Amino acid sequence: MIRASIVGASGYSGGELMRLLSAHPEVEIVAVTADQQRGRRVDESFPSLRAFSDLTMEAPDWEALARACDVVFLALPHGLSQEGAPRLLDAGVRVIDIAADFRLRDPALHQRWYGEHKSPALLAQSVYGLPELHADAIATARLVACPGCYPTASILAVVPALEWREPGAPIIVDAKSGVSGAGRGAGANTHFGEVNENVRPYNVGRHRHTAEMLQAFAAAGANEPVFFSPHLVPMTRGILATCYVRTAGAVEQAAAEETYRRRYEAWPFVRVLTDKLPETKATQGSNFCDIAVLAAPDQRLVVAIAALDNLVKGASGQAIQCMNLMFDLPQEEGLWAPPLYP
Amino acid sequence: MIRASIVGASGYSGGELMRLLSAHPEVEIVAVTADQQRGRRVDESFPSLRAFSDLTMEAPDWEALARACDVVFLALPHGLSQEGAPRLLDAGVRVIDIAADFRLRDPALHQRWYGEHKSPALLAQSVYGLPELHADAIATARLVACPGCYPTASILAVVPALEWREPGAPIIVDAKSGVSGAGRGAGANTHFGEVNENVRPYNVGRHRHTAEMLQAFAAAGANEPVFFSPHLVPMTRGILATCYVRTAGAVEQAAAEETYRRRYEAWPFVRVLTDKLPETKATQGSNFCDIAVLAAPDQRLVVAIAALDNLVKGASGQAIQCMNLMFDLPQEEGLWAPPLYP
Amino acid sequence: MIRASIVGASGYSGGELMRLLSAHPEVEIVAVTADQQRGRRVDESFPSLRAFSDLTMEAPDWEALARACDVVFLALPHGLSQEGAPRLLDAGVRVIDIAADFRLRDPALHQRWYGEHKSPALLAQSVYGLPELHADAIATARLVACPGCYPTASILAVVPALEWREPGAPIIVDAKSGVSGAGRGAGANTHFGEVNENVRPYNVGRHRHTAEMLQAFAAAGANEPVFFSPHLVPMTRGILATCYVRTAGAVEQAAAEETYRRRYEAWPFVRVLTDKLPETKATQGSNFCDIAVLAAPDQRLVVAIAALDNLVKGASGQAIQCMNLMFDLPQEEGLWAPPLYP
Amino acid sequence: MIRASIVGASGYSGGELMRLLSAHPEVEIVAVTADQQRGRRVDESFPSLRAFSDLTMEAPDWEALARACDVVFLALPHGLSQEGAPRLLDAGVRVIDIAADFRLRDPALHQRWYGEHKSPALLAQSVYGLPELHADAIATARLVACPGCYPTASILAVVPALEWREPGAPIIVDAKSGVSGAGRGAGANTHFGEVNENVRPYNVGRHRHTAEMLQAFAAAGANEPVFFSPHLVPMTRGILATCYVRTAGAVEQAAAEETYRRRYEAWPFVRVLTDKLPETKATQGSNFCDIAVLAAPDQRLVVAIAALDNLVKGASGQAIQCMNLMFDLPQEEGLWAPPLYP
Repeated sequence: MIRASIVGASGYSGGELMRLLSAHPEVEIVAVTADQQRGRRVDESFPSLRAFSDLTMEAPDWEALARACDVVFLALPHGLSQEGAPRLLDAGVRVIDIAADFRLRDPALHQRWYGEHKSPALLAQSVYGLPELHADAIATARLVACPGCYPTASILAVVPALEWREPGAPIIVDAKSGVSGAGRGAGANTHFGEVNENVRPYNVGRHRHTAEMLQAFAAAGANEPVFFSPHLVPMTRGILATCYVRTAGAVEQAAAEETYRRRYEAWPFVRVLTDKLPETKATQGSNFCDIAVLAAPDQRLVVAIAALDNLVKGASGQAIQCMNLMFDLPQEEGLWAPPLYP
Repeated sequence: MIRASIVGASGYSGGELMRLLSAHPEVEIVAVTADQQRGRRVDESFPSLRAFSDLTMEAPDWEALARACDVVFLALPHGLSQEGAPRLLDAGVRVIDIAADFRLRDPALHQRWYGEHKSPALLAQSVYGLPELHADAIATARLVACPGCYPTASILAVVPALEWREPGAPIIVDAKSGVSGAGRGAGANTHFGEVNENVRPYNVGRHRHTAEMLQAFAAAGANEPVFFSPHLVPMTRGILATCYVRTAGAVEQAAAEETYRRRYEAWPFVRVLTDKLPETKATQGSNFCDIAVLAAPDQRLVVAIAALDNLVKGASGQAIQCMNLMFDLPQEEGLWAPPLYP
Repeated sequence: MIRASIVGASGYSGGELMRLLSAHPEVEIVAVTADQQRGRRVDESFPSLRAFSDLTMEAPDWEALARACDVVFLALPHGLSQEGAPRLLDAGVRVIDIAADFRLRDPALHQRWYGEHKSPALLAQSVYGLPELHADAIATARLVACPGCYPTASILAVVPALEWREPGAPIIVDAKSGVSGAGRGAGANTHFGEVNENVRPYNVGRHRHTAEMLQAFAAAGANEPVFFSPHLVPMTRGILATCYVRTAGAVEQAAAEETYRRRYEAWPFVRVLTDKLPETKATQGSNFCDIAVLAAPDQRLVVAIAALDNLVKGASGQAIQCMNLMFDLPQEEGLWAPPLYP
Repeated sequence: MIRASIVGASGYSGGELMRLLSAHPEVEIVAVTADQQRGRRVDESFPSLRAFSDLTMEAPDWEALARACDVVFLALPHGLSQEGAPRLLDAGVRVIDIAADFRLRDPALHQRWYGEHKSPALLAQSVYGLPELHADAIATARLVACPGCYPTASILAVVPALEWREPGAPIIVDAKSGVSGAGRGAGANTHFGEVNENVRPYNVGRHRHTAEMLQAFAAAGANEPVFFSPHLVPMTRGILATCYVRTAGAVEQAAAEETYRRRYEAWPFVRVLTDKLPETKATQGSNFCDIAVLAAPDQRLVVAIAALDNLVKGASGQAIQCMNLMFDLPQEEGLWAPPLYP
């Protein structure tokens, strides 16, 4: 059994890790921490988990965690993983970070989007935890930085189309997200009265997740700019990203579909749809990312649409998929279940 | 023109007062206050009001308000109206309080449910602002305490049935409320992720609004206990109260309907339905309370169901209805418009 | 492996059976039928099931089903199970019906609420599929009639309180349901524009599920009338039933809790809560029924609140729990997973 | 008083016309028709309208309507206005059509997107009812074709940016709509269980409203292709259109804002926002269209975002705005009220 712990267990990503790991046959959760909720039982914070966990939230103690665990999941607010990760890694524990702390490999880039990094040396060792792109590196990584929810959808949707891109033309990502992506913290952005019956664009053209997309596209050789428009829609889970790639020449529908189908045929959690369009509900509660591609050759445009559950494939499920690879398990282990529909 | 101001304008009741008073032909809003948002334009806080108000939120200054206004609406968190109301009343300004501060006439009762009162002498002067029960007293009142949202629905539903009640049997009020009833403050109770796809009972058997119901029923001669079960449902506006009154004898459907019809036939904002049941959406954004009564004579039970918009008839609309009565205007003035459907 | 098929697979109960049985280690789905969707792949109807089933919906052929299956789940509109069930039973196949066709054991009662029964002789053999009440009978049954969603919540909530009831006083069940309980058929009751931002009572005092509650309470010796008030609330899944039982004497909180705790301590899918109230979201997607009891001894009232997912414990999950008992498996088999939260 | 009638009053656009015209000081509704609901009172179909209308739905009788009315609003399913409009126009009655029947002036274009037209000669007389573009023509029109909900938002957002466009580059419109845009008819696209907790793109790249956008942009001299991606989001009312225009040169933010501000400063129902982004809720129930523009000069991109209520500015409110112009009333008459928020 893999001994795992979750640091930052009181938020939505932490709760989702507990939900999924509770059903994972190869994992034992040995500790959960949440600074502000220490002393509370897990099922006080997540009533859904009653009967699944007798654990109590603890204050994080890096030394104790290092002794007790094979792997630690960090589900902390951005900026806090930088402190604990080095101590865990030094003790030989593997670390999977769900926050943004180790996603951008270039310290200058990190500085520009998130401010100064406290452990910049670690950035070079960290592996970007998108299995469909970096499975081999993940398998041997000590430190995995799980992609953001928006980048997961957008990168999986756009990367196969990059080969066709028109040089210099911006790649446009128009994404619609449920509210859980903003975390469990209460605020004007998450108040039901403000969110319900509303579509609200925010940080258009300047959201931090743009940096991850730029990094991923550049790694594939594409240095075009990205214009990213996130929108909050009145639902709890789910992201749908509609991505527009201007092409240098005319790309036909059949060729586009074939490219996408081949690109992902070995990857069980990416379902390429050819007879209908993705919708978030078809992925609810699961680790799937559904993708369709539409070509408009007369407009020199390829439109790729991806849907996923932001808390699963966009966060905790993907983290477990990475863990499976790191511990030489089938990537589907503990994750292979149909989405909840309706 | 009636010169009005709104104290506590940044919350939902305050915003609703601005929305409704903006369309009132006899009212001029001369000032709005909101301690924490002072200096912000009204339409920063309520983007819907852009083009309707150039006012800026001020810190509350009771002397200035007293000089500038004929009437002041207090839309503050419970407990704060007790400070300002005496100063406004002393200056001859009429006060309409949307909070709970002046609803319970008995200081001991207030103490038990809300803690010590700072101006207990005012309780005796205050008039409970339910026009369908107390229109005459409201017309001459200096201080009106608007009922809570749950009590408005429950009292209007239950009062006509009290004559049939079985002595001693508890009156059961099972109410379902939208989230705006919890105010604009962010918290676990209002977070979209916690509220959406959820029905959540809370404070069952011990919600403070029970006291208002007990007071209103006692005023009608009924001293039976009240068991009140509030439930939060995933919608923004609306309350539906399903009220169960055990009867001493068999009450037939036709007689029950006739009693309700007659009781409210002179009251334009209570619509007694006989061919269908109330639903909250049919009152959305309006000052209506829709009521139906169902008799189960073989069970000695009368069930009365009321629906209203908690921010309008349950708060700000009713406050304006009271203001109309206080200033000798038709009670419908500025309020007579169809609900928003769907 | 148990060979199972699903008749009526295109509706929500059918889809939920497919979702849950796909993850059941002891079951193989051998056929799915849906008259109007025959020839369509399962994942055309339920895009969530892509990668989990290659089956195609067939027209129902009772002989073929009888040959191929050990057990058949009937998820048909009410009235249609009466035709197929006898043919399957004659062929030695076990039948689990999710519709209302075999729930009421008394043909006269069935006639009164649902019209004439085509196989009245079968009513006496059928076992009411509520494991927490009838596990032994279910284990040996050939024909199981799964309870309705409202009765499951209401019966589990009320039965332990019946011993305290005041003779003759009506038992009041005030229930709030998500829309999926109305089925997948499109109509005014399920249109988003009519349901969203709405609480809508319907069939108050005359809903068919009242008959099941009466039958269950009578089986426990209680012949009191039941007043049942169903309400539609704007969510997809979930039922919360708030049940009011007038008591003959004063019942204290501690005694009430102890009674409920003991009644269900051997039943893994009923979670008795003593520190918080049930909410539907804590059961989402799972087979749990969460129950709390509140005593108001001064009002001679006991209030029991139950929450469940109407498509799982209220329909398909409970059907599988019954199947597990019928095939001598642990009742949790294939069902033991945490709810989806948020 | 303007004598008006509504043909097709049982749908959402028809109901919205009744709601708005009930509050219009210069209009009397003389008749409402709805073929399938004839004989039903208006408030049976729209319970919200109880106390506002005693009218009964009639079968449409074009001769009677022509005699009784000054103006007829057609709120029929697409294709049916073609039959009644000529008869009303011949009788000298003015016609405002909310359907698509008279929107495309070129019969060939109409044929391609909607099939053969029954009164192609009328297409040339019809005026496209977007007051902010065609006020003068509307004022003298006999037949006004109100724009679709998506085109209203998209055209108002894009037109001021067309001067900067890169020749040949597609204009991308990514729109998010509430469910009421699909009408009141029940179907899989409007079922709560399918829509809630879902974002669903549909008809991407081939929605009929593309034709209106192409026509409007061409009228402004822009013959670039349009790629239109509509998405259904889980809300009742509201459209948000995020529009991407590639520019020939670098357009700076200040210049873009100034262009938009000037373009609409004389138009009261377009609110150009410069300090925040539009959101649908800020327009709920009102005739406003809120617009913001964002320039990304380094990407040669201008992004314009528009929000409106699809049933008001996107349909019935705009129809009344047109009527006001046609009858020489201020365009705000009967429409000037703050949106409902929250």
